[in-house]
Amino acid sequence: MAGISPSYSASQQLPTPSPFSFSSTPARAGWSSSPPVHLSTLVLRFVMLVLSFVSALSLANPPKSKGQRTSSFNESSKLTYCFIVSIVVFVYSAFQLFKGVCDISYRGILISDKFSDYLSFTLDQMVAYLLISSSSLGIEAIRQAETASPLWKAAIISVSMSFAIFLVIAICALISGYKLCKRIIW
Amino acid sequence: MAGISPSYSASQQLPTPSPFSFSSTPARAGWSSSPPVHLSTLVLRFVMLVLSFVSALSLANPPKSKGQRTSSFNESSKLTYCFIVSIVVFVYSAFQLFKGVCDISYRGILISDKFSDYLSFTLDQMVAYLLISSSSLGIEAIRQAETASPLWKAAIISVSMSFAIFLVIAICALISGYKLCKRIIW
Repeated sequence: MAGISPSYSASQQLPTPSPFSFSSTPARAGWSSSPPVHLSTLVLRFVMLVLSFVSALSLANPPKSKGQRTSSFNESSKLTYCFIVSIVVFVYSAFQLFKGVCDISYRGILISDKFSDYLSFTLDQMVAYLLISSSSLGIEAIRQAETASPLWKAAIISVSMSFAIFLVIAICALISGYKLCKRIIW
Repeated sequence: MAGISPSYSASQQLPTPSPFSFSSTPARAGWSSSPPVHLSTLVLRFVMLVLSFVSALSLANPPKSKGQRTSSFNESSKLTYCFIVSIVVFVYSAFQLFKGVCDISYRGILISDKFSDYLSFTLDQMVAYLLISSSSLGIEAIRQAETASPLWKAAIISVSMSFAIFLVIAICALISGYKLCKRIIW
């Protein structure tokens, strides 16, 4: 944008106003305040909350059958990392859910819209990378764990949940990236 | 955008044309054809190429001191994964570098601009996730390897390079995401 000289801009002016050029303000207002987008984001965040809870729970309380010794995720540093990431995702989802509800109830009072867009974009990206990192180590933990042991089952559940959360957060990251981009461009 | 009724759009029309509304077409043309952005992207891709080459080389030929036995990254599945990812990043950087040069020389003849934006955005994201995943396993390999062994040194070099490449590709992903977003919005 910096490379455009004023004369070039002026020479390209359209003779009649384009409908697109004037719809800019309503379009932004429509996007950030439209209930369907807000609601679908809330639903996605809620799904993340539930999945991360299941992931953390499966590691904290591995499913064991009769006669098998009790084991804990503390035995493996990789599974401890997976557990911590699940908790982080759970807390983040709860925060986003809370923020989403606050946005609908008290529009822009708690956090300004601009800061909220930057925050969501950055945190979504970071959480997505954390999830991929923990899933990689989780898969390694599955490979190394004894087959059909409680920890093995717990790790499989946790990694599956992590992948599911990753897909959900990828959609959230696309939405928040699009919102941020729109804010920067306009 | 779908939620905006025509009457609302019309009632919000500005009395005088805004300079921003008319600069839309030149802005896009300026962004996608401006040499500074193209050149800086090319430089970033070249840095990625060099760093991924160093990363792959350090794993393929671990630095060894006198008296130490020869070791190979094949001994550890994690390091094999890191090596494969380095090669993938190397090939991808070479492809992007080639595409960038072609874009400057034969504008939009080889790949259409639209397809190119979608492709760059998707592949940048995927390569960034691959890098984070391989770095996580690389760190685990460093923890498990014998301290000061050739493979330990090689893994440290490779993981450092992976993080550096990740930072570079994060910038590239931001640029390609912004370009794609601009294309969708206009």
